Amino acid sequence: MNNAAGSPNKELYLRELTDKVIPFWEKNCTDREYGGYFNSLDRDGSVYDTEKFMWIQWRTVWMFSELYLKLRKNERWLEMAACGYEFLTRYGKDEQGRYYFALARDGSPSMAPYSVFSDCFAVMGAAAYYRACGREDARQEALSAFQSYLDREDRPKGEWTKELSGRKPMKNLGFYMMKANLAAVLEECLGDSSYRREMREAIDTVMNEFRHPEYGIVFENVGLDGNFDLSSMIGRQLNPGHAIEAMWFIMSAADRMGDRGLVERAADVVLAELKFGWDKEYGGIYYFMDVLGKPHVELQWNMKLWWVHCEALVATAMAYKLTGRQDFKEWFEKIHAWTWSRYPDPEYGEWFAYLDRFGNITHTLKGGKWKCFFHLPRMLLVCSQLLEG
Amino acid sequence: MNNAAGSPNKELYLRELTDKVIPFWEKNCTDREYGGYFNSLDRDGSVYDTEKFMWIQWRTVWMFSELYLKLRKNERWLEMAACGYEFLTRYGKDEQGRYYFALARDGSPSMAPYSVFSDCFAVMGAAAYYRACGREDARQEALSAFQSYLDREDRPKGEWTKELSGRKPMKNLGFYMMKANLAAVLEECLGDSSYRREMREAIDTVMNEFRHPEYGIVFENVGLDGNFDLSSMIGRQLNPGHAIEAMWFIMSAADRMGDRGLVERAADVVLAELKFGWDKEYGGIYYFMDVLGKPHVELQWNMKLWWVHCEALVATAMAYKLTGRQDFKEWFEKIHAWTWSRYPDPEYGEWFAYLDRFGNITHTLKGGKWKCFFHLPRMLLVCSQLLEG
Repeated sequence: MNNAAGSPNKELYLRELTDKVIPFWEKNCTDREYGGYFNSLDRDGSVYDTEKFMWIQWRTVWMFSELYLKLRKNERWLEMAACGYEFLTRYGKDEQGRYYFALARDGSPSMAPYSVFSDCFAVMGAAAYYRACGREDARQEALSAFQSYLDREDRPKGEWTKELSGRKPMKNLGFYMMKANLAAVLEECLGDSSYRREMREAIDTVMNEFRHPEYGIVFENVGLDGNFDLSSMIGRQLNPGHAIEAMWFIMSAADRMGDRGLVERAADVVLAELKFGWDKEYGGIYYFMDVLGKPHVELQWNMKLWWVHCEALVATAMAYKLTGRQDFKEWFEKIHAWTWSRYPDPEYGEWFAYLDRFGNITHTLKGGKWKCFFHLPRMLLVCSQLLEG
Repeated sequence: MNNAAGSPNKELYLRELTDKVIPFWEKNCTDREYGGYFNSLDRDGSVYDTEKFMWIQWRTVWMFSELYLKLRKNERWLEMAACGYEFLTRYGKDEQGRYYFALARDGSPSMAPYSVFSDCFAVMGAAAYYRACGREDARQEALSAFQSYLDREDRPKGEWTKELSGRKPMKNLGFYMMKANLAAVLEECLGDSSYRREMREAIDTVMNEFRHPEYGIVFENVGLDGNFDLSSMIGRQLNPGHAIEAMWFIMSAADRMGDRGLVERAADVVLAELKFGWDKEYGGIYYFMDVLGKPHVELQWNMKLWWVHCEALVATAMAYKLTGRQDFKEWFEKIHAWTWSRYPDPEYGEWFAYLDRFGNITHTLKGGKWKCFFHLPRMLLVCSQLLEG
């Protein structure tokens, strides 16, 4: 454990973003030869794999555009966003308009378009890029990717679906939390509020169907009929970080819509998640849990992931700002201290991704198949705004 | 850590099998209502999920048949094998004759037949069951499942394959090590030596293409052309337990064929794997590694799994018996001490499955999606035979 944890204030968050995180990616991630980004970056920024995973690539387009929009009109960031945008719109889609899961370094398709979240992050990336540079093709890209996302609701994995009739048909939290988030992003970036209905429907689904009335927490999977299934591993699965992330999306949307009741209900879930998901012995928030405490199918269930703690910082800072409840201030400070003393890399900047239950670093990577220029810089940006004053 | 580790002798291994492991499964695993087995069993044997995963189901058929054949003609074990055999042959296959990945408790298909190893374990289970009871339909089942396995060599995941043209085409160790093992099982159980050619080819592939000439260890994935790819995560991936398991299959086959040179070469690999995969700080063998020590894509790479240590006990005991080299005796004793002091459950019998890097138990399960009545009882049976005298 290092002692990077200063007192949680706007300056600390902003300085980490501008001095430690952005420079790491500016320096290491652009593939100037083929376009797109190198993302499998080791501790020192060296590239250990060149495959281009779609979630990751579009998230990077989004983040550079977002920084340009919200932090500073730095033309370099716009160029870096363009470097991904051009590459991905040129090579990224199959003949049905679905984004592949991954491309080879040169843009040839390497993994089939089995994940609806490839389309999801294309919506975010293209929408923010449109807002940053005003290119009409980017606006169209965001809209067509959103349509592809919506079209895939009934069968998100398409022909790669493995679940058959003997499995109770279930829906997954991720689809609905991102549907709400995408509608909000389109409203913000395209100035188009015609997705309010989709946003409201998705929020209602999360709060009324995925939130368990007794536990007060949000499940990962519920029956298509909205019923909970406590008899199966899948039905009992929890991902507290995921639920907490969904709650700040919802608090933020509710705040814009002026729905104070919804802000309070989402904030209640954040609190319930933290009470359920916090490791009372070693601190930090578990990755996966079983609601009844039965064995978890995921081997890494008790690991402590950077993104979970980033999302919890955003959610508690936002809940405190919007509700004024003291609980959230205390939780924010507790999570801040735990997180900032473990994840930042004092030597090469940026943050480590994976800790074991006890807080030991298990991987040296700064970017990989799942970690990229996204959760950490977004958290630093949003928290620096929330900590204002 | 408990102190179950006695001195490694035949009696200890046999007593653990007959007094602690077999009774746990005899008592808890049979589904008398629908047929097949309950396999998601918590520490005390209670059922925490009822889905029936195909690998697991057929491995259980194999193990009960094997015990009947090699330990004692206990009719109850034959009945328990029949309980799976009847259920799986009735419900297990799709219209193309491929085994589903999973069935619901009542036998309806729940997961698509995307894994060639479902067919693989059907070969083992049906062949051993045939040898135990002589039913002609079981012999036919073993042969047709083996044909299905061979037919799937070029595209083991069938229409669920996600890899596209941008990925360097690779082959996976698992397919070839199991091809060699299945040919050996068919020879042993059906008395049919017509698969010698397939066995020899598969062994040559493992030893000549997957074994790296400089490292002396076996890789998980190599190019279709047999070339190593040290520039990608997939190409650098190692799974020492897998490689060690492959080596005792090969030593055993080589011994039967009278090929002493091959015995020695496979034994050399076991030694190289142990030197590479043993955790010098905390003991035990890592689950996944990167040959260049770069970040591993699997979060759980540094965990210590029961099956890895079971396979290492078999491999070192066998290598010592066949080569007489003192190294293997020392390694066997070292692995024995580490394993027996951590995995056995002193309270409910059977062994725990998953430990973190430091040797702490992370899951209470005795059976799950991947652990079943297979690696542990097979190891206890084989080691008790190898430790004879």
